[in-house]
Amino acid sequence: MRYSEFIVKAKKKFSLEDVNPDFTGEFKSEDEARESAGRDKEDLAKHHGMLMAHEKYGLLVIFQGMDAAGKDPIIRSILASVDPQGVESKMFKAPTEKELRHDYLWRSMSSMPARGQLGIFNRSYYEQVTSERVHPEYLDQWTLPDELKGKDLWQRRFVEIKNFEEYLFNNGIHVLKFFLHQSKEKQRERLLERIERTDKRWGFAAIDVEDRKNWDEYMKAFAEAFENTSTKNAPWYVIPDEHRWFAKAAIAAIITDKLKSFHQQYPRLDEEKKKELETAKKKLLRGATAR
Amino acid sequence: MRYSEFIVKAKKKFSLEDVNPDFTGEFKSEDEARESAGRDKEDLAKHHGMLMAHEKYGLLVIFQGMDAAGKDPIIRSILASVDPQGVESKMFKAPTEKELRHDYLWRSMSSMPARGQLGIFNRSYYEQVTSERVHPEYLDQWTLPDELKGKDLWQRRFVEIKNFEEYLFNNGIHVLKFFLHQSKEKQRERLLERIERTDKRWGFAAIDVEDRKNWDEYMKAFAEAFENTSTKNAPWYVIPDEHRWFAKAAIAAIITDKLKSFHQQYPRLDEEKKKELETAKKKLLRGATAR
Repeated sequence: MRYSEFIVKAKKKFSLEDVNPDFTGEFKSEDEARESAGRDKEDLAKHHGMLMAHEKYGLLVIFQGMDAAGKDPIIRSILASVDPQGVESKMFKAPTEKELRHDYLWRSMSSMPARGQLGIFNRSYYEQVTSERVHPEYLDQWTLPDELKGKDLWQRRFVEIKNFEEYLFNNGIHVLKFFLHQSKEKQRERLLERIERTDKRWGFAAIDVEDRKNWDEYMKAFAEAFENTSTKNAPWYVIPDEHRWFAKAAIAAIITDKLKSFHQQYPRLDEEKKKELETAKKKLLRGATAR
Repeated sequence: MRYSEFIVKAKKKFSLEDVNPDFTGEFKSEDEARESAGRDKEDLAKHHGMLMAHEKYGLLVIFQGMDAAGKDPIIRSILASVDPQGVESKMFKAPTEKELRHDYLWRSMSSMPARGQLGIFNRSYYEQVTSERVHPEYLDQWTLPDELKGKDLWQRRFVEIKNFEEYLFNNGIHVLKFFLHQSKEKQRERLLERIERTDKRWGFAAIDVEDRKNWDEYMKAFAEAFENTSTKNAPWYVIPDEHRWFAKAAIAAIITDKLKSFHQQYPRLDEEKKKELETAKKKLLRGATAR
């Protein structure tokens, strides 16, 4: 698999400072990266078709990142390349009143991909071990009994999430997790751009700027979540995202390689099915001459 | 807690032959049992109200049993005693085409109780470690990759289910599990009755009689599921069910005791809330004189 150097190693101490957000790999230009992404996305579409044909495996891809990291455009570019009928996608916003009374995985389940589907989560249940850690007032919104909100909550949730993703794996649903890694300075530039551009300013929220003062706490919470929940079967990738074209190329490649690993070819036809196709073909050809 | 003698001990070898289905405890008559159940159900309704008021805990109650064991009437009698607005209930039938492409817990999630709710499952995901074990053709309906259908499947599912129920517990959702234990001879009588009675015969399925030849296999599969998934926080109760009035009384008592353990009283009013109530009361009283 390409880009395995960006996988967070299971159970090893990890810091986001160890990953250079400015990295662009072997690409000498943006054009080169775009070409690479284009080639991969053709492959991705083909192997997504095989996923749909077999219905043996499913793939859930989770995107996390600070505001303006580019989750939306990257997801759009993946979704644009595949058959929408084989996709489940969901954007996670602040939990609703109803969701806040349920277990925290509950709101994900209705959008979980089936075998034969690609699932895309824009944010996810990882908010419950990152932003709720930085903002205790978010955790307090859930109607949890006090004795379940102790200090061991985060470690417990790490284990619960690992168990959940292992369970999905045992059901043929694999999980890939991407963190889009930008510098604090790059975020400042991107938020400024969002304010300036008429086609983007509607998406601006004052809290995103306000939240910049918690940057270090976020980085710490993310790093701890990654080192505790990155596993062989459900790895976390921290993707350099200073140059969005690099992130796009890397992510297209990783998803494509994953889909390729499931099936090398379309379902095999047995003799009966082959006969059926032959008969149908003859009928159709006869129709043409008869007209 | 009453009836704790019917709890299957965690990780201890268990056989259904060790539980006498004819047991009726201290009740000297059916009437005595009915009175006891009646008293408990009043209490149950009251504490279910507190569950709804607090929204801190939820309770999921799972019913399993061979055909004609009485899951439906027992569930109806519980449901009849509580406020339907605080209930989620679901009857699990053969999985749909769509469900067969998902992970096996997926179809449960839409009916999972929230904190503040009582959930009742008529059958459950335990079918996936019992009837699918007795009938390999049921397992084959799921679009699982072959390598995930090996012999270790059942042990893996036991662990997955235990993890899932522990996760629910950590989210304030407790789980109680009941197996209605009848003898094979009693089932024969009950199925015959179902055929004879015009108000029951529509519910008869030939497969239920056919499946009697697998009785011993079912007992083995259930016993193994219980000994592997009965835990301190999510215990399995094997309830003697030769006399349905005993089962009803025992189950009403166990659920009531569980609900009682959550909250001793309605939410406490703080000073502000008390003032609000006083003001409202004055307004209402003034309204009466003004009219």
